[in-house]
Amino acid sequence: MNVRIENVLNRSKADAILVSDPMAISYLINKKFSPGERFLGLLIRQNMTPKLFLNILFPCEELEGIDIVSFSDTDVLTEVLSSFIDPDWVLGVDKTLQARFLLPMQEEKLAKGFINGSLAVDKTRAIKDEEEKQLMRRSSAINDEAMGIFKTLVKEGISEKEVADKIGDIYRSLGADDFSFDAIVAFGKNAADPHHMPDDTKLRYGDVVLFDVGCTYKGYCSDMTRTFFFKQGPNKEQEEIYDLVRKANEDAERYIKAGVRLCDIDKTARDVISEGGYGKYFTHRLGHFIGIEVHEYGDVSSSFKDPAEAGNIFSIEPGIYDPEKMGCRIEDLVLVTEDGCEVLNKYPHDIEIIG
Amino acid sequence: MNVRIENVLNRSKADAILVSDPMAISYLINKKFSPGERFLGLLIRQNMTPKLFLNILFPCEELEGIDIVSFSDTDVLTEVLSSFIDPDWVLGVDKTLQARFLLPMQEEKLAKGFINGSLAVDKTRAIKDEEEKQLMRRSSAINDEAMGIFKTLVKEGISEKEVADKIGDIYRSLGADDFSFDAIVAFGKNAADPHHMPDDTKLRYGDVVLFDVGCTYKGYCSDMTRTFFFKQGPNKEQEEIYDLVRKANEDAERYIKAGVRLCDIDKTARDVISEGGYGKYFTHRLGHFIGIEVHEYGDVSSSFKDPAEAGNIFSIEPGIYDPEKMGCRIEDLVLVTEDGCEVLNKYPHDIEIIG
Repeated sequence: MNVRIENVLNRSKADAILVSDPMAISYLINKKFSPGERFLGLLIRQNMTPKLFLNILFPCEELEGIDIVSFSDTDVLTEVLSSFIDPDWVLGVDKTLQARFLLPMQEEKLAKGFINGSLAVDKTRAIKDEEEKQLMRRSSAINDEAMGIFKTLVKEGISEKEVADKIGDIYRSLGADDFSFDAIVAFGKNAADPHHMPDDTKLRYGDVVLFDVGCTYKGYCSDMTRTFFFKQGPNKEQEEIYDLVRKANEDAERYIKAGVRLCDIDKTARDVISEGGYGKYFTHRLGHFIGIEVHEYGDVSSSFKDPAEAGNIFSIEPGIYDPEKMGCRIEDLVLVTEDGCEVLNKYPHDIEIIG
Repeated sequence: MNVRIENVLNRSKADAILVSDPMAISYLINKKFSPGERFLGLLIRQNMTPKLFLNILFPCEELEGIDIVSFSDTDVLTEVLSSFIDPDWVLGVDKTLQARFLLPMQEEKLAKGFINGSLAVDKTRAIKDEEEKQLMRRSSAINDEAMGIFKTLVKEGISEKEVADKIGDIYRSLGADDFSFDAIVAFGKNAADPHHMPDDTKLRYGDVVLFDVGCTYKGYCSDMTRTFFFKQGPNKEQEEIYDLVRKANEDAERYIKAGVRLCDIDKTARDVISEGGYGKYFTHRLGHFIGIEVHEYGDVSSSFKDPAEAGNIFSIEPGIYDPEKMGCRIEDLVLVTEDGCEVLNKYPHDIEIIG
């Protein structure tokens, strides 16, 4: 059995876990399926070869150390599963398992009890191994390099969409697989909307230019934000806002190490912005966990009291969204270590005038 | 209580149904929410005012004939629900309800039993009322008109993507809300892949040009396919294929009326193509139900033995995908009536040379 599956089982109280989320299965067996509406399941248990329940519509070569159990659209799922699940077990199932699968399993008394088993998988995924750390570093290094190119795309009159349309090709030319999410390119007042999507807004002299962008490299995601000034430096109020956001980012990053609580990391950044008088304009959590998905289980927010653990990778992305003065966000990915953190993004935080 | 909710309850064996799919809720109360990961629920039961369980993050005006029960992220969902659900009820839940909601409801014994209640909603949605029929007619009329414009976009050397990029604006100029799905534009051999997405393939003299396109009008979807010839008519083999697909489409449409089985409609079209020697190149079901979603519950396929009912609207889309000779599909939407069907698409089926 591979180490990831072992780690999941060691975290679980269930007798066995039936994992059904395709990304979780991809993480555990390094093989990706897109089953759509059809059932896909990986049954794992201590001292048992994992069983992959796979519809014959999705062809698959042999997988080392995994038994493949094939079924078809005409098979009854509970009958397929029943040969492998002991009715005396408590079975962990995914939080996203749908009622159309779960209810028949319960009706047929496939197991003695069913519990939400996702946390064991999610918490294992939250601690990256050495190979994953390397891939995350590379993904963010590409993102740093790409940011240096994105900023050269701007010129007076170009639209956000026109800039955003060029981002995919640039990523691929640098060796990335693809986007990790639809790029946010925001000019001027649009930067004050944290979820603004690129539109036909045209760039004007003196605008703020915000890029919130990420790519995937061998399936691993990057995610970074920088806020630039087009042709003209910030005015006094904008400089004050920018400096607060940068300080919030850097104070939080300095505070991070294994053992500090995620909510306290959030507070470190939030206090900087609140004390600067802009608290009400920092309207979202400080960060989110990331890996093979852009948003994975775990938040850097006031409601997450768990301690950061060595191997966690999450974003640190304070922002101030003042519709009158300026929208600004500075975001890095960080890797938690025993005595600090490694900031995966090397692109500088300094005020930069572009164009 | 409105007629749609009444119809659902009349079809259901449960004591009450907790609907959680946002599109189903939109259908039942004419109000659309995008709750993301958060719970949204509509509890319906005979002789009871429907209760809408709504997170306070989603503001909503008063809704006539509906009680809104507000809750927040810090509330415990089962506690919120328990005041409204009798522990002696058998509760119908949606097929897509996730384990993270269903398991706690079961643990707290919110109801005596939980069953899949989706079919009552799905079967009600499958029979369109007069207002829906009008909207579906209008949506397909726009699609017919749009097809007449799409075919004028082609010229030698243009790419599939370049054509596809113009489709949204054309729909909106004709009064549609938006796409109902990402348009398929396929040139030449690409037409032989039924799920081809527009890429950089450039149009060449003599190519086949396939458009599989649809828009929404006031939320209701259209969906039509036509296969054209660019600058030059079909060769003998292509003409034979085109004629078979057209005959399959038209024979099936002539066969349809309330009471005939969906599987037999599929067979009518499939037999035409099989007898013509191309059976193995018709690789998908004949059609799917459609309404406020492009794919709704119900298939026109060998596995659906249910009879068609007056008010059903589905696609009839036979195709032949011969990689050597030609890919061809002709698709209309049809509305089943007591003694036949109304074909919602009026765009002709004839062989047409464009460009």
